[in-house]
Order: sequence, then C-alpha cells, then structure tokens
Amino acid sequence: MNEFELIARLTKSLPTNPNVVTGTGDDCAVLDFGLPDKWLLFKTDAIVEGVHFTKDTPPEKIGHKALARALSDIAAMAGTPTAALVTIALPHKFDVKFVESIYDGMSALAQKLGVAIVGGETTTNPERILISIALLGFAPRGKAVLRSGSKTGDAIFVTGELGGSLAGRHLEFEPHLAEARWLAENFSIHAMIDLSDGLAGDLRHILKASRVGAELLKTAIPVSRAAKLRAKESSSANPPFVAALTDGEDFELLFTVAGTDAVKLLDAWKKQFPKLRLSCIGKITAGEGVTIRDQTGTQPLTAHGYVHFA
Amino acid sequence: MNEFELIARLTKSLPTNPNVVTGTGDDCAVLDFGLPDKWLLFKTDAIVEGVHFTKDTPPEKIGHKALARALSDIAAMAGTPTAALVTIALPHKFDVKFVESIYDGMSALAQKLGVAIVGGETTTNPERILISIALLGFAPRGKAVLRSGSKTGDAIFVTGELGGSLAGRHLEFEPHLAEARWLAENFSIHAMIDLSDGLAGDLRHILKASRVGAELLKTAIPVSRAAKLRAKESSSANPPFVAALTDGEDFELLFTVAGTDAVKLLDAWKKQFPKLRLSCIGKITAGEGVTIRDQTGTQPLTAHGYVHFA
Repeated sequence: MNEFELIARLTKSLPTNPNVVTGTGDDCAVLDFGLPDKWLLFKTDAIVEGVHFTKDTPPEKIGHKALARALSDIAAMAGTPTAALVTIALPHKFDVKFVESIYDGMSALAQKLGVAIVGGETTTNPERILISIALLGFAPRGKAVLRSGSKTGDAIFVTGELGGSLAGRHLEFEPHLAEARWLAENFSIHAMIDLSDGLAGDLRHILKASRVGAELLKTAIPVSRAAKLRAKESSSANPPFVAALTDGEDFELLFTVAGTDAVKLLDAWKKQFPKLRLSCIGKITAGEGVTIRDQTGTQPLTAHGYVHFA
Repeated sequence: MNEFELIARLTKSLPTNPNVVTGTGDDCAVLDFGLPDKWLLFKTDAIVEGVHFTKDTPPEKIGHKALARALSDIAAMAGTPTAALVTIALPHKFDVKFVESIYDGMSALAQKLGVAIVGGETTTNPERILISIALLGFAPRGKAVLRSGSKTGDAIFVTGELGGSLAGRHLEFEPHLAEARWLAENFSIHAMIDLSDGLAGDLRHILKASRVGAELLKTAIPVSRAAKLRAKESSSANPPFVAALTDGEDFELLFTVAGTDAVKLLDAWKKQFPKLRLSCIGKITAGEGVTIRDQTGTQPLTAHGYVHFA
C-alpha cells in the first residue's frame, strides 16, 4: 500500500463541520471562519532525518527546507502564509547548537516572508530528528486555487526546471509565493499544485481532482542542469528526461489556464519574472491519464511517475 | 538542558507579525485575524511510541490520546476547538488496520466535540510511530485565558484528582472543554493551564508568567485512587502525595481566581459539574516559588515537581 492509498483509506470518513471549505485532498485545508474577504489555509508538513535530509546536512538548510516545504503548499493555493508552529522531535542526546541552527534557518526564511513563528514543542524521537511544521495562511475569499478546476483544452504550465533536486535544490529552494499570487491576481488559474513527488505523479493529482486527462509534449519539459549533469556523471542515474518527470522535491508550480490565455500569460510572465523560466508543457484532454508526445508519436505515461521509455 | 531550557533558548528571538497576540509561552498561540468577536487559537502536540504510549496500547486509545492532549490545551485557554490536521509518521512496515484504528479513536473524539479533521499527512519514521496533531480553535476576542494573569491573594483551584495517570487515565481522559468555557463565562479566571507535567511543575508556568508565588495546602491536594493504589502495590512507587504533585499527564485544569470569588465558584461548580471534583488547593502569594503547608509548618517545594519530603 503506497502513501496515497493509505491516505485515501484513512480519510474516507473524517468528521467535518461548517468551517470546512476543503478538507483532505488539496495542497492545504481551506477553512471559512467568517472573515469577509479571506479564507484560512491550514497545512502541516514533516521532514525526517535519513529520509528528507541526512546527518551531514547543514542545520540551517534543514530548517529552511522544513518551513519552505509547507510554504510551497500555501503557494500552490496562491495564498499568503502568516503563522507557523514548529514541532521538533530529538534523540535524547542532541547538540543544542545544531538545533539552534535549524531554528536559525527557519527563522531567516520566516522573517523574509513575514511569517511569525508562534511556538511549538520539543519532544523525543530516540533514533532521529523529525521536524513538523504547522502553517496558517490566507487566500482571498473564494479564490484559493484548488486542484480541481482544470478543463479540457487548458494549457499546462510549469515553473523552473525539473529533476536532480537532490543535488542541492531541495535544501535551498524558495517557495514561489509571490509568483503564485501574481498568477492568481492576473489570470484565471484553473488548478495549481506544487511539485513535491515529481511532475508525472503530481500532475495526476490535478487530473484526478479535475476528472480530466493530459497530453504532454516531451520536448517542452524543462530539464534541469542538475539532472543532465547527474546522468552524465553516473550510468546508474535516471536519464535526464525521466529524472525531470520523477525525481520529486522540485517545489515548482504546476498549473493550468484556458488555452486562450496561454500566450498572453507567457508574455506577461517574462516581463514580471524574467529570471524564472515558465514552460507550457502540454494540454488538458478529455478522458483519463497522461500521454506524452515525441517525434515518434504518443505513448502513455504510467502512474507513480514511472515511464516505460526514456 | 531540560525541555523548558531548550525551548527558552530556541524561542528567544522568533519572527513575529501583527497577527500575533501571544506567541510562545502559553498553552496555545493566540492570533488576531480581524474577526470582530474571536481570536484564533493554534496548537500542536505530538506523541511518540515508547514515550507516550507503548507497542501494546490499543490503537483507538493512541488516537484518542493524541487528539485529547491538544484539545486540553485549547481548554486551558477556555477555547472551542474547530479543526485538526493529523501527521502520522510510520515505520516502513505497518499494520494498516492498526493505523485505521488510531484514526478511529481520533475521529470518535473529534466527532463528539464538533472538531473537523481536515487532512494531514503520512511520513516515514523507521523505528516508531509518532503522531502530531495541529489544532485550531477559537476564544472570545480579548477573553482567552492566559497563564499570566494571576494576582497576589488569588485562590488556586484544580479539577479532578491527581497522580497515577499512567494506570490508564492518560489514554482515556476527556479534555475539560465545557468546564473551562463555563468557568470563563461565569467567573473572572485570572490564569489557567492544563496539567501535563504535574501540578508542581505546571503551577510554576503560571507563577513565572504572572510573576507571583504560591502557597499550597498539603491536605487540600486531591490525590487520585490510582496513585494511592500504586503506592500500596509497589514499594518503589512514589508516595501518593508526591505522585499527585509530579506524575504528570493528569490533564486536569489548574486556575486561579480572586480570593473573594472562591466560595461562590465552588458552590456554582458543584451544581454545574456534580461529578467532577474541584479543589481549592492554596493561594497566590507575592514573591517567587512554591511553598507547601502541612501540620508541621511551611516548606519550599522545589522546581521540576520534586519535593524534599513526603
């Protein structure tokens, strides 16, 4: 049973109440507390030593990553983060300076983005460090960008370049909060998600929520230099294109807009964010699943990010 | 370095913003999002296998405890909980039914109290289960009961009976949400906390935040049957009175009111909550620290819940 099957089973009949706009199944929970102009976004995200970082990872980068991951989910709904609680589970013996530096990394990012760290707790996890961030944010009332709004004929966009994040980007990425807000303020963004599990996997979350399919154009997928380098350096590494589809931890934004908005959006983006690449990588189709087109024709892209070809 | 020293060091210069009413240092963070009649309460609490429960703990009770602990912190501010996110970190091999039963325990309690479970995540913690709950609640605007309002001459009250919680209560307690709200609606509660680390330790959090001291009356401390039984059964167990002061995980409410309100409060409580004992256990004094009075006189109660005598 994979993570998504487990979550589906655990969340099939959870208690709800009138404050809930969107519970499970999107980047954040969306809550309506009666604010005239705002919805509240609510998110938790955890990182674990040996899974999301190693014993050798510089502690400031661990802290940065812990908070940035949760912030990226607020970005995926075009929200603005406001307050975080930090849970840190530590072995009995720990280096106080190391833990302080984790906090320094978090605080620096929080400060930069106007996010308050309003407390949290320390607890014991004997074998390894685990950090969980609980985060609150806002979205304009009625305008949180969900995963469920994609329509047949939409253009699919992705920011940045994909793959090879483990070479360093996964510890240093800046969540695309300003970019996401600009998108939502200037265009009708039908659906959005941040890429944490890899394009091939995360695109499926949008497709499933929106009950549509997608066709990607192979040559349009933006492959990172890191993915290309890794493939060159190691014969056991994924080919760069497969890495771009499946590596995960890119924390780029994937979104769809009406096909008629695509050119206008690309032009406006280049003026607004000249340093961050934006790629139109395909289109939303009727039906189910993902196909990918190259010079030889169209082939299915399998679930969980794996492909039959390279 | 103990937990409280570490937290003090980690939280000494955290980023803040105008939404923050109270950050670290109370039972919950208190946030002002501009709701005319409400403040938002924000809390996280984690439990860890081998620390807060064992491999043999029935999974429904694990789930119940995980949520009840966080709810108890909302109660300590006289708040009303509304929405929770659940983070569950699991070893690679886990029993899906066991995890579902953890969720069942949480969901049953959430349902009963009108709390929505709006998502969360599963992640990996190879050696043991860890569950972290992020919880949102409300308090009437300007009326969250903090730890910092105790005044010299206040009467100190505690609900229920203390000590021996490990015999079972720590897995089954019901957070005193209705009782706390009734208290805040009907009396001027100067300060309140829920007892998680033991009376002797948690009282100090109120005293420190309020910059006052306390004198307890030994005979007034309500000692639980479980603490008495354990002392009878095992010569290595704490004497019942020490257990009542230091065992922890009682999840009872400790609060102070003006001395002039004490009798009226006790009378009204007995009518309102005839099944839950309420004890006036001492008074707030000028100065610092805790003393305890018995028939032989007054003695200091040391920090961290330990006493020099029994």
